[in-house]
Amino acid sequence: MLTVNRRSYRPPAVPTVVVCVDGCEPDYLSQAVYRGRMPWLKRTLAEGTGLIAECVVPSFTNPNNVSIVTGAAPSVHGICGNYLYDPASGSEVMMNDPKWLTAPSILAALADAGHKIAVVTAKDKLRRLLGHGMRGICFSSEKAHEATREVNGIDDVLSLVGLPLPDVYSAALSEFVFAAAVRLMRRERPDVMYLSTTDYVQHKHAPGTPEADAFCAMMDRYLGELDALGCVIALTADHGMNSKVGLDGSPDVIYLQEWFDQQLGAGRARVILPITDPYVVHHGALGSFATVYLSPATPAAEVIGPLQRLAGMETVLARDAAAERFELPSARIGDVVCVSARSTVIGTSPARHDLSGLDAPLRSHGGVSEQRVPLIVNRRLAGVDSTRRLRNFDAFDLALNRAQ
Amino acid sequence: MLTVNRRSYRPPAVPTVVVCVDGCEPDYLSQAVYRGRMPWLKRTLAEGTGLIAECVVPSFTNPNNVSIVTGAAPSVHGICGNYLYDPASGSEVMMNDPKWLTAPSILAALADAGHKIAVVTAKDKLRRLLGHGMRGICFSSEKAHEATREVNGIDDVLSLVGLPLPDVYSAALSEFVFAAAVRLMRRERPDVMYLSTTDYVQHKHAPGTPEADAFCAMMDRYLGELDALGCVIALTADHGMNSKVGLDGSPDVIYLQEWFDQQLGAGRARVILPITDPYVVHHGALGSFATVYLSPATPAAEVIGPLQRLAGMETVLARDAAAERFELPSARIGDVVCVSARSTVIGTSPARHDLSGLDAPLRSHGGVSEQRVPLIVNRRLAGVDSTRRLRNFDAFDLALNRAQ
Repeated sequence: MLTVNRRSYRPPAVPTVVVCVDGCEPDYLSQAVYRGRMPWLKRTLAEGTGLIAECVVPSFTNPNNVSIVTGAAPSVHGICGNYLYDPASGSEVMMNDPKWLTAPSILAALADAGHKIAVVTAKDKLRRLLGHGMRGICFSSEKAHEATREVNGIDDVLSLVGLPLPDVYSAALSEFVFAAAVRLMRRERPDVMYLSTTDYVQHKHAPGTPEADAFCAMMDRYLGELDALGCVIALTADHGMNSKVGLDGSPDVIYLQEWFDQQLGAGRARVILPITDPYVVHHGALGSFATVYLSPATPAAEVIGPLQRLAGMETVLARDAAAERFELPSARIGDVVCVSARSTVIGTSPARHDLSGLDAPLRSHGGVSEQRVPLIVNRRLAGVDSTRRLRNFDAFDLALNRAQ
Repeated sequence: MLTVNRRSYRPPAVPTVVVCVDGCEPDYLSQAVYRGRMPWLKRTLAEGTGLIAECVVPSFTNPNNVSIVTGAAPSVHGICGNYLYDPASGSEVMMNDPKWLTAPSILAALADAGHKIAVVTAKDKLRRLLGHGMRGICFSSEKAHEATREVNGIDDVLSLVGLPLPDVYSAALSEFVFAAAVRLMRRERPDVMYLSTTDYVQHKHAPGTPEADAFCAMMDRYLGELDALGCVIALTADHGMNSKVGLDGSPDVIYLQEWFDQQLGAGRARVILPITDPYVVHHGALGSFATVYLSPATPAAEVIGPLQRLAGMETVLARDAAAERFELPSARIGDVVCVSARSTVIGTSPARHDLSGLDAPLRSHGGVSEQRVPLIVNRRLAGVDSTRRLRNFDAFDLALNRAQ
């Protein structure tokens, strides 16, 4: 047994694939299965295990992918957003740098124990975090053409996959991940593979729409191929996805920096949106979670009440309460944490959000309202208590320890 | 001023129409407006008032329609479901009979004050409740062909409307309501009109789907006609609507009678589903709210904990706590109230739900997760505090007292 972050994992007996489908609100799968678009999943739910789990809040990509590969909450691994304010340097920075990691991954530990590991992500931003400290194959669809043996443990990925390099804003970016996985499983037969897609489709299209169903059908074909190759497959998601618009169809936004500037005067509070990353065209950096750094003159208790009364606000917590409730590293989440409701997002101020790239009614995530995610294993499970609170970061535990 | 159930209403200065769109989750409107299918509503939101309000829980049709026409919560008007257990007679009965009403309606009071009133409902089940004690026109689409001057204050409705009698399971049943309203406004020019549709479309089709958008476009045309006739229009809904299926696309049901029978033995608890009505083909009598009558030997406190731990259960309250939280008549809600989560419904036992009529993934309502509804007025409003908790049963207050 291998112990990582205080949890024990059995070495893989058969090739084991953990898949994180970005933005996979469970209803995407339900609707596609109902319409006969996911025959593999339909059979898997009948013969294997289909559960609902809770993701990490903030329900964003980086914290959840890192939770899945570490089997731990952000309080353990340190990644609490895609983006943070670093009080030490006084700057706002992307949280893509492995320097922010405070825990090793299961992948790295398996590799150290001599297992062959492969990681394929859609966007390159995740690759560095997920591959940190890990020997093996690790590349992204986005930069597949740049993969080298030295950096990525593999080269000539485009030839391997047989698909053109996909656009970063496309469903094809995710398809490339699955296509690469099948080819890798055939050629390299890794002991453990971790796949992570992008939520480009989910940000635009609701469950049951033709585009969403087509995406699910695409996944199903590749997952069926991996299954046929003898893999144990555990599928989960980093977060769900909800419509976030007002009655007129435009984004329903609480502009929180603007609110603070009006309430307290400019410069008294700094609102951080941890959804921010280099790719915001499809959501305009609008999500349902924000952290706020207050000037020392403003006690958190003074603003929490008024914030809670804002229309569309769901939960407002001071630093320590938020760190405890959501299992977050308290030194990295600001003085106040704001979570907006199912249909509402939080922005800074209107001028700082470019919504010109939004070509569909906004769908986004970040809140507690996007915490439900699928947790599916193509095997029956042993020893999972029916009252256990399941998390998406139990995926490796289920796949390695519980799959029969 | 007219006082009804402790609230005061101004007499209508211009013809005033309150519309309850059954199952109108706000996103139906958002998506249709975004796609250009509701030009009247788009203009109305810009020039009038578009708000979000909370409906009554249980988020079912009867309690909410009666709340809207009485301007009061079920604790005042007595209608807490479509269906209830009557301990006095030991029988389960429909709550369509006016004998269950414990408060007069605004409509009846306006009629008594000499105003001309018209009520049009989709289904006949609501007509008797809404028209109770009211002089004026009151008929349903369903029984339009049977309307008589004696009973309904109008006859020959089919000639008036110029549409064929619609099927009870159809979008046309709702269209008939709107078409009748426009004809009535032209011919009779009532001072106040109350319209109530059916959620047949919403139970089958998600926001943004072609069928939902077509329904919204239909409404928009008729509402535009009423607006052009000079009416003040307030539009709200009785409840929202959510997808209620598991990963395999079948209904995600907690079979509660079965659970009680297994836990306590048969006959120790009686589970009542207040969604039940004579028309259950499109939802199989599956909603997100149930009440439970326990035998005297079983204290509520004993079952509340285990019920709360059931997957998909959101809130479980003893009688008094439920009556207080949801403003319900405590004598009519059983010993325990159960509210399931957004994606889950509550049933009795599998054999008692006929799901053979479900030809789409289940969508339903009843819970707190369906409490958000639109509250739209085609006028700017005066004197509405921005921190006020708005309810759908404020519709007459906004239309009569606040519209400018």
